[in-house]
Amino acid sequence: MYKFLTGIKSTGRPHLGNVIGVIYPTIFLTKLTKLTKLTKNVILIANLHSLTNLKSIKNNKNNAYKILAVWLACGIDYKQFLFYRQSDIPEVTELLWFFSIIYPYNRLKLVHSFKENVKKKQIINTGILTYPILMAADILISKAELVLVGKDQLQHLEIARKIAKKINNIIAKKIFPLPQAIVIEKLIPGTDGTKMSKTKNNIIDLFASKKEIKKQIMKIKTQKQFSHKKKELLKDNLYNIYRRLAGKEKKEKIKTKFQMGYEHAKEELYKLIINKFKRERNFYKYYIKRKNMLETIFKKGAKKMKQIVNSTIYEVRKAFECN
Amino acid sequence: MYKFLTGIKSTGRPHLGNVIGVIYPTIFLTKLTKLTKLTKNVILIANLHSLTNLKSIKNNKNNAYKILAVWLACGIDYKQFLFYRQSDIPEVTELLWFFSIIYPYNRLKLVHSFKENVKKKQIINTGILTYPILMAADILISKAELVLVGKDQLQHLEIARKIAKKINNIIAKKIFPLPQAIVIEKLIPGTDGTKMSKTKNNIIDLFASKKEIKKQIMKIKTQKQFSHKKKELLKDNLYNIYRRLAGKEKKEKIKTKFQMGYEHAKEELYKLIINKFKRERNFYKYYIKRKNMLETIFKKGAKKMKQIVNSTIYEVRKAFECN
Repeated sequence: MYKFLTGIKSTGRPHLGNVIGVIYPTIFLTKLTKLTKLTKNVILIANLHSLTNLKSIKNNKNNAYKILAVWLACGIDYKQFLFYRQSDIPEVTELLWFFSIIYPYNRLKLVHSFKENVKKKQIINTGILTYPILMAADILISKAELVLVGKDQLQHLEIARKIAKKINNIIAKKIFPLPQAIVIEKLIPGTDGTKMSKTKNNIIDLFASKKEIKKQIMKIKTQKQFSHKKKELLKDNLYNIYRRLAGKEKKEKIKTKFQMGYEHAKEELYKLIINKFKRERNFYKYYIKRKNMLETIFKKGAKKMKQIVNSTIYEVRKAFECN
Repeated sequence: MYKFLTGIKSTGRPHLGNVIGVIYPTIFLTKLTKLTKLTKNVILIANLHSLTNLKSIKNNKNNAYKILAVWLACGIDYKQFLFYRQSDIPEVTELLWFFSIIYPYNRLKLVHSFKENVKKKQIINTGILTYPILMAADILISKAELVLVGKDQLQHLEIARKIAKKINNIIAKKIFPLPQAIVIEKLIPGTDGTKMSKTKNNIIDLFASKKEIKKQIMKIKTQKQFSHKKKELLKDNLYNIYRRLAGKEKKEKIKTKFQMGYEHAKEELYKLIINKFKRERNFYKYYIKRKNMLETIFKKGAKKMKQIVNSTIYEVRKAFECN
């Protein structure tokens, strides 16, 4: 029974990509492996990481609630999971410092996400550079062994492993397990065909108004003309999204829908989404109204998390003679 | 009545340079300005900063005691000062993160101390880069208005001021005063003529054994020959150290001593130091044996510091919607 961790940054409401790529696999995995003990399943709401995007500051609190509401709406059992809202455990920033003094700064400059930021932005704030160290702190403070991440996060996980090794060496004791990644390969693309992401503005937001969802679907970039050839089909973004959500629907039936033109196919995708996630959409509306309930779940998670953290931080402080 | 802060890194026992450059000026200044209210005078023992030198990890705890013992031995009244041992206030690392997300990483690369490290070391750990941000956190978490620093720290203080301004802007409230530097110009040189510093191994350790002090004095680099000319005198390292400590002793008398050869002059410096700091050396021996007493002073400081910190951190968390 391995300890499991996954997380979502509180930069907005989780979108279709998060639901398919993180939330459903988590529910599936934990059922499969019978990871049913509360303290063995950690779900991080990364409301400190979200701040590296300064625009997120303004809705940071509410976004954390939205993420929890989506998890619940998708059917996670909050009695079997520990919801860890990052800012509730300030010890994680203590680890950020302890890890900073042992991890080379030059290696942080090689991280893909950092290099992408350098290309895009004029001013790179320090938090964007030290982001992977804070992520290592999250993983290690939870003593997670299995971490469900996107492919683009694999490099961050490798950094967490390196730091765990170094700290274990300093302490001369294996206090941190080396976390292993679980990667979901088959992701759902965004409306522009690249990875679905809030910052790229290419998301489908399952919990938005119907009008909004329709608008997002209408934005999906398509090929010039629909083709039956497998090679062409794989390039077709709209087809890929539809196919990924359609489940058992026969390929031939889907192709027929697409032959009636992309506009028709988009309409079909819209209907599919609204039907498929009807239950989730209703539950989301239910939970998001109950902020007190959500706050209580966070508070309970923080309490459990404190128990895990206390012994870890004690040992780390001792190792650095800061006790 | 301004709030005052100064600090020493726990990388070893404070040396003659620290005593002349930090401890005595602090005692003098606070007497002068009647800064006698405990929470208005903060003395930082930077036992998180010290860790950027990995060699310091091993004696970090004991070094913090040594620093406090030296402050007491030099005559500071611990009832009128708040001794703040950095690791007792983990909230300072929380500020490190909040400040990291608003301070450009490129500007940290321009800091002198960082550039010096780049020249000297093959591997630069991240903590060496983010060092000034942690220092800003120390200053601002204390809400210090006057900060006694070495000349080489002025750049760090400027960073603290910039961060204070930015955070005040975000919070739309002046929660952080902009700290002003007090700089001690006339520092005592090290035994090689450059700034006295443990890492340069050019210190005179007032609280070492007599044998050790003699050895350190014998290491002082001198001119080839003693000269009476003012221009030459200013270049003479041994003369500069002697002059700085001799106080009211007449210049002519000193020159006579030097005319009898550098070996004789070094012997005179040794006698001067042992006599001048006799009381301090005895008190140091007294205090360093009383670890429980020192720990109690730290604990009391931490308690007072928590009161100062709580309201600050509450406002910062609220500003970033992490409350």
